[in-house]
Amino acid sequence: MLNETQIINQLKAHFPQYIGDDAAVIPASGDQSYIISKDLLIEDNHFRTSYFDAANLAHKALHVNLSDIAAMGGKAQFVLCGIAIPTQLAQYAQDFLAALVTACKDASVILIGGDTTRSTDKLCICISVIGISVTQNIKYRSTAKIGDVVCVIGNLGYAHLGLISCEQSLPDLQEYKNAFLCPTAKINEGLWLAEKPGVNSMMDISDGLYIDLKRLCMSSQVAAHIELNDLQPPTAFKKVCDRLQLEAVNVMLTGGEDYGLLCTVNNAHYAQLAEDFKHEFGYPLQRIGNIVAGANVHFTENAMPKQLELKPFSHFGEEL
Amino acid sequence: MLNETQIINQLKAHFPQYIGDDAAVIPASGDQSYIISKDLLIEDNHFRTSYFDAANLAHKALHVNLSDIAAMGGKAQFVLCGIAIPTQLAQYAQDFLAALVTACKDASVILIGGDTTRSTDKLCICISVIGISVTQNIKYRSTAKIGDVVCVIGNLGYAHLGLISCEQSLPDLQEYKNAFLCPTAKINEGLWLAEKPGVNSMMDISDGLYIDLKRLCMSSQVAAHIELNDLQPPTAFKKVCDRLQLEAVNVMLTGGEDYGLLCTVNNAHYAQLAEDFKHEFGYPLQRIGNIVAGANVHFTENAMPKQLELKPFSHFGEEL
Repeated sequence: MLNETQIINQLKAHFPQYIGDDAAVIPASGDQSYIISKDLLIEDNHFRTSYFDAANLAHKALHVNLSDIAAMGGKAQFVLCGIAIPTQLAQYAQDFLAALVTACKDASVILIGGDTTRSTDKLCICISVIGISVTQNIKYRSTAKIGDVVCVIGNLGYAHLGLISCEQSLPDLQEYKNAFLCPTAKINEGLWLAEKPGVNSMMDISDGLYIDLKRLCMSSQVAAHIELNDLQPPTAFKKVCDRLQLEAVNVMLTGGEDYGLLCTVNNAHYAQLAEDFKHEFGYPLQRIGNIVAGANVHFTENAMPKQLELKPFSHFGEEL
Repeated sequence: MLNETQIINQLKAHFPQYIGDDAAVIPASGDQSYIISKDLLIEDNHFRTSYFDAANLAHKALHVNLSDIAAMGGKAQFVLCGIAIPTQLAQYAQDFLAALVTACKDASVILIGGDTTRSTDKLCICISVIGISVTQNIKYRSTAKIGDVVCVIGNLGYAHLGLISCEQSLPDLQEYKNAFLCPTAKINEGLWLAEKPGVNSMMDISDGLYIDLKRLCMSSQVAAHIELNDLQPPTAFKKVCDRLQLEAVNVMLTGGEDYGLLCTVNNAHYAQLAEDFKHEFGYPLQRIGNIVAGANVHFTENAMPKQLELKPFSHFGEEL
């Protein structure tokens, strides 16, 4: 079976305008463009109703898309929701739609349309968000430059621990469960970064840092060095990983669904930008490595090459 | 379980901008607007792979959306495709995407993005098409006027006979099977009608004339009289209905998935418009009734009220 990257590459061969970014871009008025995302959430592949209540699922379904818009530097405006409802989940679907209304209002986006249909067995949700941005501020994956600093915004691996906690019905670990069940897109951070000079490329981290950075590198035709000294697991996170017999750095590199942001910043701008970011948002614009010539993602420890054996995250059997 | 109309009414209470039309409208540049559709196709609810080959399904998945854009008078420009693929349909999905590329090129629309993911068992497809139109030419369901002529563009009930032929594996009836398996949106007709004076409201006929006209009446707060003398089944169609023990007029009124157009036209403009339409497209802008004050859809025969007992179409158990 072809994976998503192979499929996108095939489609791009026919439609060079198929950008393969977090969202598609079409002209709006004047110097602005619309940015349009589309994300499918399929029951028992992306979520289980046994541990996702309808409100969390609605919040997540929306924010997964808001994250795509934020990752390109857009301001979300409109939402379309397609939903295919199996009979046994009629009440759940109604609760989902009521919660989606609330989530849209909370995020100041307007639900403008969609499609409602019946499904034979699984609940299927397809949300699109339409955002807007000054065209020249839109950020892409394909524009990382050699010498850029690779930066991460948000926690890494938290959602993966949450997924495991939910799947194994562990009674505690609520912080990690929340990260998985109810992630909030880095909306303000994306908008803020889009307007700053020196931010050369950006995408969201939905499938895990390692895979997503690989995609950014492939798209920009560059390589990345990740310095493992800059990827220190927080103490509490490390403790949970130990308890679950997981290697903490592996979880940080391959755990998906955190919906943080990944960006590359011109080296000359990084120090000031990091200071301003910390001042604005109260948490770091975390430097984790550099863009270099070449291909793929490589690791260093104290600037020396280091081999890592990674097992990419595939939560319900998703191929990446 | 709430039906689609009830769900849309609930959402409209929160978002008055939720138009409940075939597609949503957002501002584009200058005097133009974008028109955005979203349609879900779920395996074994909207299609079966046993009789839908991948090429037909791709054509239909696209044209169902092109029909939404045409119904509002827009010119389709861009496509997004979300697809959730079960492992056992990996090759089918690849053929589907290849055929979608062809169908997009044939319709002069550009595939700009989407989402690819795995599904546990059923193939799920969610396509969105973005069209454009001069804002004042956009047609809605809510603007039918009392005194308007109700018109139908395209065959009625053909796709329903095709569905039955496919479901019952009947060896012949190819014309009807084609109408169901590979419908072509009334793209040029929709664009042409949108530019003409006197066309007060328009929508596509996706769930059957009776249900769709009911929706148009509800949206416009009017009633419709359908004159059964104007709804004569073609001889060959009638013969097939007899053979399948179906009541031909019932099939014409309740059969879904024809993807013709339904519009209401100012009475003073109808004669000229019908003549011009026939000249332009070679088939009739079929007059089937009138818009009157009141609510709901009523039937007349020789202008006298007539009761009809209709069994609305529900092909794979879809509620309407």
